[in-house]
Amino acid sequence: MTSTRITTLLLLALTALPSWAMIVEKQKHVIPSFTLFNGAELKNVQIGWEAYGELNEDKSNAILINHYFTGSSHAAGKYAESDPAPGYWDAIIGPGKAIDTNRFFVISVDTLANINAYSSNVHTTGPASVNPTTQTPYGLDFPVVTIRDFVNTQRAVLQSLGIKKLHAVIGASMGSMQAIEWASTYPDEVERIVSVIGTGYMDAWSTVELEQWAIPIRLDKQWNQGNYTRETAPLDGLTAALMQVTQIALAPAFINQIGESLDYQPLESGPLHDIRQKHSIVNWLHDRARQRASLMDANHLLYLVRACQLFITGHSDSLEKGLSNITAPVLLLPAEQDLLLMPYMSELLADELAKRNHPVSLHTIEGDQGHLEGVTGIGKMAKTLSTFLNTDVSPENPK
Amino acid sequence: MTSTRITTLLLLALTALPSWAMIVEKQKHVIPSFTLFNGAELKNVQIGWEAYGELNEDKSNAILINHYFTGSSHAAGKYAESDPAPGYWDAIIGPGKAIDTNRFFVISVDTLANINAYSSNVHTTGPASVNPTTQTPYGLDFPVVTIRDFVNTQRAVLQSLGIKKLHAVIGASMGSMQAIEWASTYPDEVERIVSVIGTGYMDAWSTVELEQWAIPIRLDKQWNQGNYTRETAPLDGLTAALMQVTQIALAPAFINQIGESLDYQPLESGPLHDIRQKHSIVNWLHDRARQRASLMDANHLLYLVRACQLFITGHSDSLEKGLSNITAPVLLLPAEQDLLLMPYMSELLADELAKRNHPVSLHTIEGDQGHLEGVTGIGKMAKTLSTFLNTDVSPENPK
Repeated sequence: MTSTRITTLLLLALTALPSWAMIVEKQKHVIPSFTLFNGAELKNVQIGWEAYGELNEDKSNAILINHYFTGSSHAAGKYAESDPAPGYWDAIIGPGKAIDTNRFFVISVDTLANINAYSSNVHTTGPASVNPTTQTPYGLDFPVVTIRDFVNTQRAVLQSLGIKKLHAVIGASMGSMQAIEWASTYPDEVERIVSVIGTGYMDAWSTVELEQWAIPIRLDKQWNQGNYTRETAPLDGLTAALMQVTQIALAPAFINQIGESLDYQPLESGPLHDIRQKHSIVNWLHDRARQRASLMDANHLLYLVRACQLFITGHSDSLEKGLSNITAPVLLLPAEQDLLLMPYMSELLADELAKRNHPVSLHTIEGDQGHLEGVTGIGKMAKTLSTFLNTDVSPENPK
Repeated sequence: MTSTRITTLLLLALTALPSWAMIVEKQKHVIPSFTLFNGAELKNVQIGWEAYGELNEDKSNAILINHYFTGSSHAAGKYAESDPAPGYWDAIIGPGKAIDTNRFFVISVDTLANINAYSSNVHTTGPASVNPTTQTPYGLDFPVVTIRDFVNTQRAVLQSLGIKKLHAVIGASMGSMQAIEWASTYPDEVERIVSVIGTGYMDAWSTVELEQWAIPIRLDKQWNQGNYTRETAPLDGLTAALMQVTQIALAPAFINQIGESLDYQPLESGPLHDIRQKHSIVNWLHDRARQRASLMDANHLLYLVRACQLFITGHSDSLEKGLSNITAPVLLLPAEQDLLLMPYMSELLADELAKRNHPVSLHTIEGDQGHLEGVTGIGKMAKTLSTFLNTDVSPENPK
C-alpha cells in the first residue's frame, strides 16, 4: 500500500468515525523583535500555534480562532489519541463540523503572557520568561501587553505562512476581544468575525471584576512584587484567583449540581465546630483550582487581567471610532446566564453596530452554565456558525 | 410652657418635618454566660441594641429588625442631628412611616461577631474581644457562631425588656436569615416575618461566593492565623474582602455610573504603561473599601461568613423540616438584579412554603442597584410592608 493510499484511508476513517481524534501538533514561531502598542520593545518573542485542515493554494481559506483567558491555542483535536480530552472547541472544529476542516485551514495562536506558562504545549513570552538583559525572569519588568498586541503577534504568524486575508476570526471571551480588534485594526484582512461570550470594550464593572482576580495574587507573600521563580511561586494567591475565575465563569446551577454530588449541606459538622475547616463545596473548588494552578503563572494572570482591562475596540478613547473601522459582518453569541461578560455587553455592541447599519446578528446561547456555555455549549450554535461562515461578502454583495 | 407641652410640640414638629432626624441612643445588654448552637460556651457577651417608638403596656407592639452582613443595629434615626446620614432603613422606620414608630416599638440588635467591631456605636462579642481566660483577643479560639445564636442573643435582649411575642421580625440579607430562623425556632413568639433580599438556606453556590470574601484575609501575612491586634490588623486582606462584598452587592449600572463620574476609560494611560498602576475605577473601589475597613475586624468577617455559610432554616439537615415549623405569614422581597442572593433563592422559598399552603407572598424590588436595592430601594416597598404589617393573624383568622 502506498503511503498516499494509507493517508487517504486514514483521512476517510477520521472523517467517518468522529470518535477518533484529529491529531494535531504544536508549532512555534519566533519574532526577533516586536514593538508593543504602548511603545515598549520585546526581543525573541516565542509564539505557539496549531492548525487543523489544509491551507489552499491561494491561501484564502484560513480561519483564525482566538482563545479565552485561561485557554491556549489548543482549540480542537488531540496531541495524542491517549489525551483525556480534545481541544476546547472540538465540537465545532473538525472534518464535517461547523468550522469544517475539510474546507478551511483553521489556526489558533497562544497569546503573549499566556497563563499556561509551564505547559509543554504552550509557547509564550511573558513575565515568567527570561529577560535577555538580566538572564532572570522579567517579573514586573515585563511591559504591559494589550489585546492589540495579541492580534499583532497572530498576524506575524499568519504572514510567516503567507496568509494575507482571513475568511473569519472567531473567539470566545478574551478571544472575542481579539476578533473584534482584528476587524477594527485590519479591516481589509478580515472577512467575518464571531464574538462568543464577548464584549466590544471593558466597562467599569468588568474592569473591577477582573481586578478581583488579581488581588489575592498580590496579597500572597510569595508573590514578592512579582519576583519569584517557579519553585517559589505564589500558588496560594494563584489558586485563590482561579477559584474566583471558576465561579464567575459558571452560574449557580453548575456549582449546585456539584454540591449535590458531594452531598453538600449548609450545616456540615466540620465547619460548624471549627472555623479552620471548610465546607465540602469549598474544598472541591479549592482543590480543582490548585490543580489547575500547577501549570499556570501568577504574574501571567496579572498581565492578562490588564490586557483585558485595557480593551476597547480600536484601542482609542472612543468605542464609536473603533467600531466605525469595521467592515466585516459580525455574529454575536452571548450566553444567557453569563455573569462575567453579561449579555448586555453583546447587546450594546449589537445596538452600536446596528445604528451604523452594519451587518450584525445576535443569537443567545441558552443553558445554565453561565459564561462557560461559550465553551461547553458551543455545539448548540453549530448551525448558526456554519450559516454565518457561508455569508457572501463579495464586493457585489458586500454585507 | 410645661415640659409635656414642649414634648408634644416637638413630637408634632418631628412628625410634620421628616427632615428632622429621630434621635436614638445605643443601649447595651450583657449575658453573663451563653451556650451556642454548637455547644460552646461564651462568657460576658456584650450586645448592642437600639429602639424607636414606645413599648406599649402589654408589650405587644414590638417589631424586631435584623441587620445585614456589614450592618449594625443602627436601622433608623441618628445619634446626633449632625450625623451625616441616618440608619440604613430610615426610609421605612419612623413616625408615620411604613414601620410606624407612632404605633410600634421597633428594636434592632447587634449580632455576635459584628463586623464593625471598632465602632463606638456597636457592642458585640467576637474574635476581637478579649478572651477572659487568656486576657488576649480570642482570635480563632473564638467558637463558631451561627444565625441561630444571633436569634438567641436577640431573644435574651427582648426577654430583658419583658417582650414575649413579636408583631413582626424583618431583616435584609443576613437579617432575612435571622427572621426566618426566628419563625422556625420560636413559632409561638413571631406573628409575621419579612425576608428582604434573603434566602431560606445557603446553597453551594452562595457558600462558595461567601468563601471568596474570606480568602484574601487569610492570604494577608498580617492575618497570622487570626493572631493580631487592632494595630497589626490585616487591613489589606480586609480591604480586598470588602472590595468583593461591595461589587457583588451591587450591579453593573451602579459601578458604571461611578465610572462615568470618574471619567473611567479602558485605555487609561497609567495602567497602559505600568503594571503597578490601576484604573481609576479600581482605585475608587479600593479607597472606599479601605475607609470602611478602618472600623471593621477581619476575623469578625470570617466568622460572619461562616455563620451565613452554615445557615439553613431550623438548623438541621432538612429545609422542609425547618420550614414546616413556621406558622407566621411570610413576605418575601427579593431584588430584581441581585447578584448575591439571587431572586431564585426567594422564589424557591416561596414555592416551598406555597406547597404546604403556608401564607406567603413575594414582591420583587425593581431597580438597577443589585442586592443593595434591599437597603437603598426599600422605600419602594413601603406600601407592601405596611399592608403586610396589618395582616390579621388572630386565631379566628389565623393566616
